[in-house]
Amino acid sequence: MNVTVNGRIRRYCTVSFDARDNRVVLIDQRLLPHEFKTVSTPDFRATAAAIREMVVRGAGAIGATAAYGLAQGARAFRGRDLKRFRQHVSRVFEVIKAARPTAIDPVNAMLQVRRQMNAGATVEEQQMLALAAAEEFAREDVEHCRAIGQHGVKLIRNGMKILTHCNAGWLAFVDVGSATAPLYAAHALGRKFHVFCDETRPRSQGATLTAWEFAQENISHQVIADSAAGLLFSRGEIDRVIVGSDRTLGRTGEVANKIGTYTKAVLAKRHGVPFYVAIPLSTIDWNLKSGRDIPIEERDESEVLGAWGVLTGITATQSAVQSPKPGRRAYVRVANPTSRALNPGFDVTPPELITGIITPAGIFKPEELWAHRRLLGGPC
Amino acid sequence: MNVTVNGRIRRYCTVSFDARDNRVVLIDQRLLPHEFKTVSTPDFRATAAAIREMVVRGAGAIGATAAYGLAQGARAFRGRDLKRFRQHVSRVFEVIKAARPTAIDPVNAMLQVRRQMNAGATVEEQQMLALAAAEEFAREDVEHCRAIGQHGVKLIRNGMKILTHCNAGWLAFVDVGSATAPLYAAHALGRKFHVFCDETRPRSQGATLTAWEFAQENISHQVIADSAAGLLFSRGEIDRVIVGSDRTLGRTGEVANKIGTYTKAVLAKRHGVPFYVAIPLSTIDWNLKSGRDIPIEERDESEVLGAWGVLTGITATQSAVQSPKPGRRAYVRVANPTSRALNPGFDVTPPELITGIITPAGIFKPEELWAHRRLLGGPC
Repeated sequence: MNVTVNGRIRRYCTVSFDARDNRVVLIDQRLLPHEFKTVSTPDFRATAAAIREMVVRGAGAIGATAAYGLAQGARAFRGRDLKRFRQHVSRVFEVIKAARPTAIDPVNAMLQVRRQMNAGATVEEQQMLALAAAEEFAREDVEHCRAIGQHGVKLIRNGMKILTHCNAGWLAFVDVGSATAPLYAAHALGRKFHVFCDETRPRSQGATLTAWEFAQENISHQVIADSAAGLLFSRGEIDRVIVGSDRTLGRTGEVANKIGTYTKAVLAKRHGVPFYVAIPLSTIDWNLKSGRDIPIEERDESEVLGAWGVLTGITATQSAVQSPKPGRRAYVRVANPTSRALNPGFDVTPPELITGIITPAGIFKPEELWAHRRLLGGPC
Repeated sequence: MNVTVNGRIRRYCTVSFDARDNRVVLIDQRLLPHEFKTVSTPDFRATAAAIREMVVRGAGAIGATAAYGLAQGARAFRGRDLKRFRQHVSRVFEVIKAARPTAIDPVNAMLQVRRQMNAGATVEEQQMLALAAAEEFAREDVEHCRAIGQHGVKLIRNGMKILTHCNAGWLAFVDVGSATAPLYAAHALGRKFHVFCDETRPRSQGATLTAWEFAQENISHQVIADSAAGLLFSRGEIDRVIVGSDRTLGRTGEVANKIGTYTKAVLAKRHGVPFYVAIPLSTIDWNLKSGRDIPIEERDESEVLGAWGVLTGITATQSAVQSPKPGRRAYVRVANPTSRALNPGFDVTPPELITGIITPAGIFKPEELWAHRRLLGGPC
């Protein structure tokens, strides 16, 4: 999508590959929204480190990064010994997998690359196939997001106000995004709408990443506190909710997503506002039989007890104390220093609160996913 | 309530009066929760400035501060000319009123003081009556909060988990607080319970003030992101919600309170969890006929776009960049620098979501307030 760098608009993907120098090129998401910079990793260990250190995050984006990282590692092998090559590739696989041990996307992406490269008869052929497979993975990620946009675009009409939560935007994929795809498609057709970006405490991905994306695309938007949506719903100022999903149960239609998603679904239901979840097929879990079986990650307390940002020279309104030197990244402790926090990362939204699931294969009611499982890449 | 200062537990009120030096003594709430300090204002202009600069905040607390400030100003008058004295008192009244022009509590408190002092025949008598009236106002504020606690304490049983939002604690009153009163009463009886303090973005009064209060009283509590309550409700981990109110409509039972209150009420209803609002009688509005007529303050965008806190030496987890020198208060810009925010300060909760209103005169269903209006200090 678009990024304005030094006053000029350029097109970027979250993840790409520089085949000549054998480097994975990533937007450094740790610096966003305050600074835009790309990094290119010199070898697969650096690529694994970039995944581990959250230079890149988001299901599709870390999947593609892992796919490219495996190809990068394979291509760095010198020699013709296929057995030693395979041992080397296994090592690369394990190093990249260990970068985010609970994430499923890097593993699935690398398995797909390895399956395709195994068709090669020589080391050189396998190296070429590895890169081709990684490129295909990244291309498919973009195509799936575009397909979500084509199906979802009909939901976005002129004058609408749309609520989003967290970041399921192009920064979480290779390009386009899932929850943002219908919005980008509608924007490309010239439709006028306004988006409320939930701040999404404690990590504030709505205020940082989603708001940054919309600003780059000149899409009308405002950041709101997570608590503010209730008032906007009750005033009739929200026409649609669109969110992403970390895991959607194919058997039940339950949706696990960033903490706070469930609350927005409850509010939407009460106010008769359609609530949509946009997902690539890779996030459908066809095995779990109940949302209660989805593990809810408990994250570090410090996220809730404080906030990361950039120091500014703003005049203190709630304190007479002057702010220190502006422009540097800093963590401030907000909460009472002797108090602790509880920080669950996700919640589960039941199907009765969900109007539709926007997939690359069409829009379905959550209860219909299982019936359409073959179309959606599920089990036979 | 209790405050531990230099390892020793002492009793404090939010607002008190030093009659010998004619000074209003305030806990400096701008420094909490990171530093505890009291300030004493040398004259009524300094007292007005303390209200304006949010040294003191909260309906009951600024009411008592204004009452004391008016007495302070009256007592500083030198001479016996009753006419000039009255002119002086009117000037004091206007200066203090202008400190928070939209707040109703300082005005009501000062009107009460002025009514009582007018019974005096001389300047000296009126000066004495002014102080007596201010002391009475402060004492009644505490008594009303204690009465809320006595009525509400039966709702808090051993083992319960209670959700609060924002700060309707003793720091918002002279002592004890409204929403916290039943909790402090239950704690005094030795009951064991746990409180989830909603962070309450954007000003984070739950994470800062309410958590600080509970820490001082050794009440078991955790700070949660405003978005986390939905998950806790769906897991059955919340037994009660108790919040305060900025304005409760006596005719309809609608409750205006800090943004996010309505959302918690909707969740509580869905999960069959009782939702209580604790209020002193002064916050009942007997005139307005509909919650739609309650003006919703739009506050400064910077509150949503960033956060105030204290710099720490914490190792960056989402960035490799080091934090600057710890210990200083600072504002960090969190959101995308080119994005704007919408920052409504309050929302309105309808009576059908409210289990009961805990008042100093008993617990009532919101629809019953009007029928009990004489008991509740309303119109005949």
